[in-house]
Amino acid sequence: MNASNVTQTLYWDETILAALREDIPWEDVSANAVVDEGMRGHADLIAKAEGVVAGLPVFARTFKLLDGTSEVVLHVREGDAVAAGALIAEVTGNMRAILSAERTALNFLQRMSGIATYTRRMAELLEGSGTVLLDTRKTTPLLRSFEKYAVTVGGGRNHRFNLSDGVLLKDNHIGAAGGIKNAVERARAYAPFVRKIEIEVETLEELREALDAGADIVMLDNMRGAALEEAVRLCKGRAKTEISGNVTRENVQKYVALGVDYISSGALTHSAPILDVSLKHLHAI
Amino acid sequence: MNASNVTQTLYWDETILAALREDIPWEDVSANAVVDEGMRGHADLIAKAEGVVAGLPVFARTFKLLDGTSEVVLHVREGDAVAAGALIAEVTGNMRAILSAERTALNFLQRMSGIATYTRRMAELLEGSGTVLLDTRKTTPLLRSFEKYAVTVGGGRNHRFNLSDGVLLKDNHIGAAGGIKNAVERARAYAPFVRKIEIEVETLEELREALDAGADIVMLDNMRGAALEEAVRLCKGRAKTEISGNVTRENVQKYVALGVDYISSGALTHSAPILDVSLKHLHAI
Amino acid sequence: MNASNVTQTLYWDETILAALREDIPWEDVSANAVVDEGMRGHADLIAKAEGVVAGLPVFARTFKLLDGTSEVVLHVREGDAVAAGALIAEVTGNMRAILSAERTALNFLQRMSGIATYTRRMAELLEGSGTVLLDTRKTTPLLRSFEKYAVTVGGGRNHRFNLSDGVLLKDNHIGAAGGIKNAVERARAYAPFVRKIEIEVETLEELREALDAGADIVMLDNMRGAALEEAVRLCKGRAKTEISGNVTRENVQKYVALGVDYISSGALTHSAPILDVSLKHLHAI
Amino acid sequence: MNASNVTQTLYWDETILAALREDIPWEDVSANAVVDEGMRGHADLIAKAEGVVAGLPVFARTFKLLDGTSEVVLHVREGDAVAAGALIAEVTGNMRAILSAERTALNFLQRMSGIATYTRRMAELLEGSGTVLLDTRKTTPLLRSFEKYAVTVGGGRNHRFNLSDGVLLKDNHIGAAGGIKNAVERARAYAPFVRKIEIEVETLEELREALDAGADIVMLDNMRGAALEEAVRLCKGRAKTEISGNVTRENVQKYVALGVDYISSGALTHSAPILDVSLKHLHAI
Amino acid sequence: MNASNVTQTLYWDETILAALREDIPWEDVSANAVVDEGMRGHADLIAKAEGVVAGLPVFARTFKLLDGTSEVVLHVREGDAVAAGALIAEVTGNMRAILSAERTALNFLQRMSGIATYTRRMAELLEGSGTVLLDTRKTTPLLRSFEKYAVTVGGGRNHRFNLSDGVLLKDNHIGAAGGIKNAVERARAYAPFVRKIEIEVETLEELREALDAGADIVMLDNMRGAALEEAVRLCKGRAKTEISGNVTRENVQKYVALGVDYISSGALTHSAPILDVSLKHLHAI
Amino acid sequence: MNASNVTQTLYWDETILAALREDIPWEDVSANAVVDEGMRGHADLIAKAEGVVAGLPVFARTFKLLDGTSEVVLHVREGDAVAAGALIAEVTGNMRAILSAERTALNFLQRMSGIATYTRRMAELLEGSGTVLLDTRKTTPLLRSFEKYAVTVGGGRNHRFNLSDGVLLKDNHIGAAGGIKNAVERARAYAPFVRKIEIEVETLEELREALDAGADIVMLDNMRGAALEEAVRLCKGRAKTEISGNVTRENVQKYVALGVDYISSGALTHSAPILDVSLKHLHAI
Repeated sequence: MNASNVTQTLYWDETILAALREDIPWEDVSANAVVDEGMRGHADLIAKAEGVVAGLPVFARTFKLLDGTSEVVLHVREGDAVAAGALIAEVTGNMRAILSAERTALNFLQRMSGIATYTRRMAELLEGSGTVLLDTRKTTPLLRSFEKYAVTVGGGRNHRFNLSDGVLLKDNHIGAAGGIKNAVERARAYAPFVRKIEIEVETLEELREALDAGADIVMLDNMRGAALEEAVRLCKGRAKTEISGNVTRENVQKYVALGVDYISSGALTHSAPILDVSLKHLHAI
Repeated sequence: MNASNVTQTLYWDETILAALREDIPWEDVSANAVVDEGMRGHADLIAKAEGVVAGLPVFARTFKLLDGTSEVVLHVREGDAVAAGALIAEVTGNMRAILSAERTALNFLQRMSGIATYTRRMAELLEGSGTVLLDTRKTTPLLRSFEKYAVTVGGGRNHRFNLSDGVLLKDNHIGAAGGIKNAVERARAYAPFVRKIEIEVETLEELREALDAGADIVMLDNMRGAALEEAVRLCKGRAKTEISGNVTRENVQKYVALGVDYISSGALTHSAPILDVSLKHLHAI
Repeated sequence: MNASNVTQTLYWDETILAALREDIPWEDVSANAVVDEGMRGHADLIAKAEGVVAGLPVFARTFKLLDGTSEVVLHVREGDAVAAGALIAEVTGNMRAILSAERTALNFLQRMSGIATYTRRMAELLEGSGTVLLDTRKTTPLLRSFEKYAVTVGGGRNHRFNLSDGVLLKDNHIGAAGGIKNAVERARAYAPFVRKIEIEVETLEELREALDAGADIVMLDNMRGAALEEAVRLCKGRAKTEISGNVTRENVQKYVALGVDYISSGALTHSAPILDVSLKHLHAI
Repeated sequence: MNASNVTQTLYWDETILAALREDIPWEDVSANAVVDEGMRGHADLIAKAEGVVAGLPVFARTFKLLDGTSEVVLHVREGDAVAAGALIAEVTGNMRAILSAERTALNFLQRMSGIATYTRRMAELLEGSGTVLLDTRKTTPLLRSFEKYAVTVGGGRNHRFNLSDGVLLKDNHIGAAGGIKNAVERARAYAPFVRKIEIEVETLEELREALDAGADIVMLDNMRGAALEEAVRLCKGRAKTEISGNVTRENVQKYVALGVDYISSGALTHSAPILDVSLKHLHAI
Repeated sequence: MNASNVTQTLYWDETILAALREDIPWEDVSANAVVDEGMRGHADLIAKAEGVVAGLPVFARTFKLLDGTSEVVLHVREGDAVAAGALIAEVTGNMRAILSAERTALNFLQRMSGIATYTRRMAELLEGSGTVLLDTRKTTPLLRSFEKYAVTVGGGRNHRFNLSDGVLLKDNHIGAAGGIKNAVERARAYAPFVRKIEIEVETLEELREALDAGADIVMLDNMRGAALEEAVRLCKGRAKTEISGNVTRENVQKYVALGVDYISSGALTHSAPILDVSLKHLHAI
Repeated sequence: MNASNVTQTLYWDETILAALREDIPWEDVSANAVVDEGMRGHADLIAKAEGVVAGLPVFARTFKLLDGTSEVVLHVREGDAVAAGALIAEVTGNMRAILSAERTALNFLQRMSGIATYTRRMAELLEGSGTVLLDTRKTTPLLRSFEKYAVTVGGGRNHRFNLSDGVLLKDNHIGAAGGIKNAVERARAYAPFVRKIEIEVETLEELREALDAGADIVMLDNMRGAALEEAVRLCKGRAKTEISGNVTRENVQKYVALGVDYISSGALTHSAPILDVSLKHLHAI
């Protein structure tokens, strides 16, 4: 997805405000105590490690929402790789507001940049192949749109956003429906017709049943070696293939070589360490 | 902090509901398509890696909020260490609701358990010393209370919760106030009298000024070797000492040996990888 | 879609409560003036015209949310056709609460039943054909899920729910993208891969371009006669076909005969008159 | 009521934003895919049928809330009758935002204009008489203020807005109070003294009891012929008279001739078909 | 107004929860530190001064909302006069929850009881006369319904609730409309017909103009002596009379003697001191 | 605390908007009826009694939020003492908006100024002594930050804001913990380390136990005469002392003479009568 003004206006602004309220339940005691009202300040946003920057619109918006007079001048673009020590941006505005918004702005930016950095490293392994890197729904509660956006900045693409906008039938669904054929048919009969139907299969027999039932996408679970090779071959021209989980730098080439269409990874959003960023050199202007 | 019913009623319930709404904007298409209304199911919550479990009340509450008839039976207690493969809990309830709540419940649990696991490993290094491990405000936006609670489950303790409930004067505040003495005095004059005043110092000279001004806690920044040793000695009986940042398994013993009172670490909440947990064996009952 | 407990818990309850608050900004003056506290009452829900009933769970929930002791006994099932004068349900509960909730409960039920009634009449015309009746996004602001559910009760099916969960490229999108081919390719490159791509075409030339670009669904706009016939033929096995707008009882057979896959109608939700229903015979018990 | 800036600021803005969020849960996939960021566009708002336009401030505000740079130039005034094909307004602004807001803006406008059109046709039948056309509380949940405003644009007037701001005692209230006299007295004793007391009567005997009890307004239910004539006569100078329900173009003259003060109609808000309006000719500028 | 379950469900519950959140932004540190989870307690609610009790349903609901197992046994009824030292109620429940809810529950009760006490003292001066004591809109922001309810418990009655549900034309409105006659006519033409029209007049000439224009209620401002006497006489049978402001225990008899219909007092809600109440004898059970 | 832009943006704006919505559930009928759209007006804010003004930023913001074109010119500064009849400020803006916002703006200002006035009178009695006047948590539900701010304008200082940001152990906590020593130790072990620990004691023996346990602040409850004198002496250099409740103009000198550090008073916020302020001379411009 994209950090459009529409998404920012309808969703991100209120999440940013809620985050500011979480950190400032009534006032910033330290800033109000020692900084005179009306003082203006300037600070530098510095990368303290190398990585890929994502979330600059959110970072800037955090200051703007707390202080309409604040300005953020960017020195890198969203998605740029930066070296440790790089100057990412400069912030000017009311000095109290800079201090009060600092931590919240950084908390967003460090997390989103961490995800973009981690994603970029995985995505580079797939470069040149036809295999696409996807995220999952294993995201931080309430921050999914920020995180899925950061994945795209890093070079990944988005799987479904939620349980309403995509159909994915797993073993539990198949069991409840009484088999793969039934599950696909019930899903097709029920879901809005603009949905593709994805189903998880564990054997070649299940795969054939899924293809015959007309599944649009199959997730190949726990298949290895020749079976996996055969599975991918069977799907060509009939359904897209997705591999999920436990894909590592070491084994990813194997999947790419097989011609799998999609590889999805929960780690992109649930286990990426942050990119260390810091607001430095705050001084009155 | 503590996962009391009061906190759950006033805050966690609404966050959990917001997270469910994020994942289910109108309905769970897959579950509603293939699972008959009224079917009841049972599933096992399994650890897929070893670690410390935190967030069981949130996990159980997620199912309960979506389905008042659901029940979660726990096989371990909050804070227990579990092995890979361990059965953590069993869930029973409406089958559609189990499927619809599954991802949200796991997203909370995996993150909170990841933080508790990471914290436990750090806290163990401090065991037996008088040095206490603290978290920071480098938390995920909107999830601070969940994460600070997870830190305590892991064996850490909480620093201030936000900008309103604690005073911490950093270089920027000191600069704006025109020096350490002024900053501490302005803070004492302004802040509610139940607040302790903490101030960051970088040299022994600054430290002496802070102690003379009556600071309750000093954060010793960038001090090393003899200077740090001297700093800790100067503070004995006059102020508590805190070291923040870049404390690792390798160097932590050094700080403990010096008798520092507190070590704070942002990584506890911003960079702990999740603990892998999974809902398995869902079947109709 | 389906009126599952999950949707009710996460969305409908709060909409119903908001509707009650709209009608009762602080109290029901009339009921509180003349009805003694604690009186219990019983009333009948009567159809005053023939039609298809939809919204019974919403009707019952309105009373329950205002008065946990209320009970609604149904005499017909959701989707049943009723004659004028039919007893649809009986309500018992606190008498003040019945009076206070009455109008809100009926406002939901009459509108949803109106949509189901109107939809049923259209859907019956398509019975036996392979052509499916769809709704649109021309719904009442804030009530889309209620209305799309009512369409399914009436026998229609749901098109996309919103701008996030489906891709539909109209003339304006095509113009902005610089042609059909570009538009489909940009959409495929950008949208989550679980989305189908639908595009609107007005000529056979455009249709061919869309099919070549790999569109999943084509909306045939303003095509008539031989061109339309040819269009449907071209799409067989390559894409689904949808006709939208200005489909009436009189001309619908023509489209069915051509073998169009989907016919969508905004009137289902924006212009269906209500089904007249009334709460009668309220008396103390 | 009136579409004042106060009402817009306090209520309509948040309803419009909620409607936009309903249609755009995270982003407009189609627009973001094919329209370049920053493109600006222009489009025409066209009437596709003849009718009375209502809701132009809401239409314009929908674009403005999503895109502060948007401008809407009006070619007709609120309440004007337009012919099919008429240019109602022109919209300029960010092209993505125009596409994203289009359906929501139209959904408000088409509904409000439909109500104004329907109301105008009924109101014209009463022109020149002293009888006034009123709406009811049979409105769409959550949209009452929009709909009651549209009624006034169409030439009708507003009955009470809700259960708190008006007293209307129906058969159920009378039964609970033990008679008309008691009901009116209890209402007068309980309700804020700025409320008028309205009561529904079905016979001349009930009417006399209501007038003696001091009712300010009587709703004459199910009265016909000589009884109705006598009822209106009895009320002159003592109470206002209202007829509700089942008033049609055919029979309305009869009520007017009798000198009834008010005729109320639920159909104005619950069964008016929309006025078909469309956004056309979107092009880059 | 009345503390009905409907008002409680739709409004008071959320205000009480908001007040609890104001006092407990994440947890009650003191209670959680020293009280073991699961301990149950019992406490007495004691009056520390004599007065009239109002707000018992709110007091009890505060504990119930935080702890579903809590119970409050009342020893007096709403509106009872109590002596200093009287046992008003007993609270049992989870001990942490009692401590956490205590201050919020008392803050509501002490304020509402203060208003009821103050109102009762004023209302007693009017007893036996036909003059009625009214409140005003000079209430505490966000607590109007609680305060207007407390007035009725004290023996006063409610004037309009807000700017939407009553018409009161003051000097500023009259000036804007160009005179009394115009103001009344414009109000009658614009306001929903169930509204009474009240207008403020300062001279007998203005009063006559208001009566001729058909005002339902006149507020006699700044009239004294013979003029006031004449004013009240002129209104008999034509309009209700209201005196507002600066009515004291000393001068109230004068107005009563004149036969004024209503006396309104802002002090009832804006300046009543609290009734001192306290939760005592908390002990484990 | 301080009325900073940060607090206003994050909290006060939404409280002011909620208060406006409380007073204007859909429109201001009187203003909309008689004032033409677009008329602009000017009015004077006048003190009708002498006192200390607090809340001017809230007053001005109320008009601004309803009407972005409004301007408020101040003639006094926050915290100034004014005489009866003084011109405090002038308001210009849309005339309807001035009328619609008037009561809400005044309701905030009169209450906050009442608190500041009452506080100033108490604070003056402590002038020159080292004893500081504090507020309590006995505030109006939902208005705590407005009221605590008004206390500081009046010259008092703030005690803790809520149950999360301060530890105060009263008799109930001590009982639950099994004594003073245990209570202090449990609190120190549990509370974030930036909290001071305050405990209430009633005897010198309890005081000694509290001091030995390391309490930071002791509240001396019900101590008098020699015992109180001894208590204050014992605390010097070991803990701060606070006296709460029943401190009056008459007896305050006694506490000051003893050298008590803090005196807290609930009456500052719960029983201060309002300062009478009024909007006068509204006229068109």
